Amino acid sequence: MNRDQASIEAAIAKAAANPALALQTRPEWYAADLIEAIARLPRESAIAILRDVPEETAIRIFNTPGLDEPSHLLEALPETRQVHIVNNVYPDRCAEILRGLPSNLRQRLLERLGEHGKETVAKILAYPADKAGGIMTTDFVSAPEGARVKEVIERIRSAGPAAQQIYAVYVVDAHSQRLLQAVSVRELLLASPEALIVDASPHRRPVAVSPATDREEVARLISKYDLLAVPVINGEDRIVGIVTVDDVIDALVAESTEDVQKFGGMEAIGGPYLKTGFLTMIEKRAGWLAALFISEMLTASAMQHYSSELEKAVVLTLFIPLIMSSGGNSGSQATSLMIRSLALRELQLKDWWRVARREFPAGLALGAILAVIGMTRIVLWQKFGFFNYGEHWDLVAATVGAALVGIVTFGSLAGSMLPFILQKLRLDPASASAPFVATLVDVTGLIIYFSIAILILRGTLL
Amino acid sequence: MNRDQASIEAAIAKAAANPALALQTRPEWYAADLIEAIARLPRESAIAILRDVPEETAIRIFNTPGLDEPSHLLEALPETRQVHIVNNVYPDRCAEILRGLPSNLRQRLLERLGEHGKETVAKILAYPADKAGGIMTTDFVSAPEGARVKEVIERIRSAGPAAQQIYAVYVVDAHSQRLLQAVSVRELLLASPEALIVDASPHRRPVAVSPATDREEVARLISKYDLLAVPVINGEDRIVGIVTVDDVIDALVAESTEDVQKFGGMEAIGGPYLKTGFLTMIEKRAGWLAALFISEMLTASAMQHYSSELEKAVVLTLFIPLIMSSGGNSGSQATSLMIRSLALRELQLKDWWRVARREFPAGLALGAILAVIGMTRIVLWQKFGFFNYGEHWDLVAATVGAALVGIVTFGSLAGSMLPFILQKLRLDPASASAPFVATLVDVTGLIIYFSIAILILRGTLL
Repeated sequence: MNRDQASIEAAIAKAAANPALALQTRPEWYAADLIEAIARLPRESAIAILRDVPEETAIRIFNTPGLDEPSHLLEALPETRQVHIVNNVYPDRCAEILRGLPSNLRQRLLERLGEHGKETVAKILAYPADKAGGIMTTDFVSAPEGARVKEVIERIRSAGPAAQQIYAVYVVDAHSQRLLQAVSVRELLLASPEALIVDASPHRRPVAVSPATDREEVARLISKYDLLAVPVINGEDRIVGIVTVDDVIDALVAESTEDVQKFGGMEAIGGPYLKTGFLTMIEKRAGWLAALFISEMLTASAMQHYSSELEKAVVLTLFIPLIMSSGGNSGSQATSLMIRSLALRELQLKDWWRVARREFPAGLALGAILAVIGMTRIVLWQKFGFFNYGEHWDLVAATVGAALVGIVTFGSLAGSMLPFILQKLRLDPASASAPFVATLVDVTGLIIYFSIAILILRGTLL
Repeated sequence: MNRDQASIEAAIAKAAANPALALQTRPEWYAADLIEAIARLPRESAIAILRDVPEETAIRIFNTPGLDEPSHLLEALPETRQVHIVNNVYPDRCAEILRGLPSNLRQRLLERLGEHGKETVAKILAYPADKAGGIMTTDFVSAPEGARVKEVIERIRSAGPAAQQIYAVYVVDAHSQRLLQAVSVRELLLASPEALIVDASPHRRPVAVSPATDREEVARLISKYDLLAVPVINGEDRIVGIVTVDDVIDALVAESTEDVQKFGGMEAIGGPYLKTGFLTMIEKRAGWLAALFISEMLTASAMQHYSSELEKAVVLTLFIPLIMSSGGNSGSQATSLMIRSLALRELQLKDWWRVARREFPAGLALGAILAVIGMTRIVLWQKFGFFNYGEHWDLVAATVGAALVGIVTFGSLAGSMLPFILQKLRLDPASASAPFVATLVDVTGLIIYFSIAILILRGTLL
């Protein structure tokens, strides 16, 4: 469908190859396509293009949320262009860009914002980037309850392109400025021009958040109530900004990337893979890897503890990897189920007991299935002579089967409970849950395996 | 903020306790809050409430995307109410509900839709639920290019509440009906009433999808171009429906749940954890668990292959769990990085070689870090007499160190390449990638470990 994209990429490649030739952008090109083409360029060419495009194109580009690392790009531009850009992008984008800059440059550019801009951007910067206050925009339209629909529309029309981010009109009490109601642009369009703005939508308490609300919670509310924007109100119920659905989609995508990376046992790298420096990447991965390695050392301690049993019955070692991995896999299944259910609020902390009561029989059933497969394998190999598990092969099979039931049950229980514990401790349940569970299950699994072996094989092999 | 929610829950609890007392809903209650309260009830009470609420409330509830398993709930209602609901919800919701019904009931209700409804819903049902055609709504506003802005607004106003799902007006060629341009509701509001509709927005090719486009791709386009809705066009460029941003948020949330569950090594359960039947859940988990178990049996085969080495050097077995888990963890880190980068299109298939060239040194570096920690541990334990690794403890330490470098490097490479291979085979890279990688790395890890041991320990322990 998108034939433009090819011509954009061609034009950008040409401009990148010959910097004297400034990029001829066309107004019908989508900024999002421009950004994708720029993202494919080496850093130097990208900067050259951002330096040479017409100013309004540069602003369009920096205004588009898809631009990777806007602060790093801005940093490399000439100062006049930097000032022009921060003065003309939306306040929320401006705050996002400034946030990523070294503090001296941030301070310098903040000083050179217009009086009004300085104030609004400083207000956003006062909140962390993962809270509603830190991603809100302060460009919104409010109207006193007594205004008529046609007056509000007139006012929006006269504001012109500055009102591009309009998703709703916020009706406030003329006296106290408290937020009374939200009227969507759709409702505004549908309302009779002579009606009062307050009657343009059903009279219901608007859904609103505080500046300190988590961006994940904002996303949940926008999705739950099917909103296009949610107002941010202060302690006096006065509206200070809005968070829009496009920011929320970006936040959702970022959260889900972070979740997958944390789930995979590493710190979120916070940027595209190929653009992340080699050392940064090693740093984000080495920490968790080393932490998990050090806790996995407990497996070596457990093995050392059972070394006399190991010497007597080497046949037991053959199944250690198999049994350990089954515990890990069942734990990781249970964890992934809980992480999502907790994130979507399908489950709450108080549901832990209901979950435990389900995971216990589920673990037993799954363990029994694996036990049957595992024992069948030992019997077949022994009967057909593929391998000789020794005189007491039947007892070895019983040990493996019983251990599988125990370990898979423990894995399912541990895997389902750990996310609850992390949530209770106010940590993100996704944080390295799966590898944590694997480590816990590995160590406990060895203890379960050897304990069962000692029980079953005492007097024969052990 | 949401004080209403408590009163809604109280009212619903009262109505559920006493079915004779029909639920008194209030128009200012959000349907989303009603749904959350209903979701907490036992199934029978939920059905009693949906049977007894005023008809327009039932329609509001079934129209809200957050309702879990709408088909199962509808199935339990009296037939007159069923017919009323399917005739009055949005076409896309109607299709979604019908899709989940047993085929005889679906057919019966489809017959009882109005003439127009039957046709549009059948059109949506013709596409799978994960394609644009299967989640689109056919309620949209189009206008010929020659219409004036005020005429279009008039027409929308006179359509009234039926036009509630309006996000944009689609301008079509009066003759061929081809889609020319999309004018957002915002642009419509900002445009001069006398202007031609075609001049109300910049003249650019509208972003559009075909009915067969994947819902993930639709989500990516809506997010990339910051749209509120994307038109679905047929082979003749005629618009047949639109997919709206709220459907996309739901699709994103559903996809990311599926991804986490698949990543955790199971089939997506496709519903809330506590509402999924015990047997269904076992079924979704047992398949993958058994498949992984059977492939992990290769570890037992590998161990059997090295059983004579094991008998001679039992000390080697002590580190098997530690070494295997390190390979698994490094593989799962690399996999989680690739899965997200591929999903976000930061990486494409052709980038596999660039990734491999990064993961190889990254694996070496990470492996070296773990090797240093692991060897230090052996040296310390030996020197301080915590454990005696035997006469050749220094060679054992060297074996463990070298094996860690080899296995972590292999894990990083295998973990990063598998998602590319799955994508190349047109499978979802998230599908059980992490456990697959773990299995592959476990088996190969054992072979690496024993091969290195034979090299280093030949003539001493082996």
